[in-house]
Amino acid sequence: MYIAMNRFKIALGRENEFEKIWKERETYLDDVPGFLNFHLIKGEKRELHTVYVSHSTWRSQCDFSNWTKSKEFRSAHKKAGGNKTVYLGHPIFEGFEVVL
Amino acid sequence: MYIAMNRFKIALGRENEFEKIWKERETYLDDVPGFLNFHLIKGEKRELHTVYVSHSTWRSQCDFSNWTKSKEFRSAHKKAGGNKTVYLGHPIFEGFEVVL
Repeated sequence: MYIAMNRFKIALGRENEFEKIWKERETYLDDVPGFLNFHLIKGEKRELHTVYVSHSTWRSQCDFSNWTKSKEFRSAHKKAGGNKTVYLGHPIFEGFEVVL
Repeated sequence: MYIAMNRFKIALGRENEFEKIWKERETYLDDVPGFLNFHLIKGEKRELHTVYVSHSTWRSQCDFSNWTKSKEFRSAHKKAGGNKTVYLGHPIFEGFEVVL
């Protein structure tokens, strides 16, 4: 298994707006080969932002990588980049192999 | 749900040794109220270390917090701190509420 995480810094006070974007987002993930599950998770509040992480689990890194090259990926991200003042900086990606 | 992650920096070349510690570790987690699952996940190789994260999922933050005060927690951690040269620095904890 493989876990893909994207870390977002969300401006203080804009958390509900950010969560609404994700709640209403069409991800087109359910029919993607190897996709297992998705969560949006909320971390610590810091001085200027709240940490959020998009957290998806895949059968393999290869399945995840194939998805990033698919038309479903382009469809899911075509609205990304709007609402710019919600975000402090770009999201930071990290991928993890499940060892145990 | 709540996800607890502890991030480790493992010295290059010591990855197998670190994974063996976790494979052989008795976590005493299965009977802990609210515990859902555990994974050890492996991230990027950097210049001096490889990133690993211990990743556990709980019914609630409260269940996780209760576990950290339990005798099961003390039992699972009584050997922690050995093999010091495997680790670069202390692990960094982050906890996340599952929003979606």
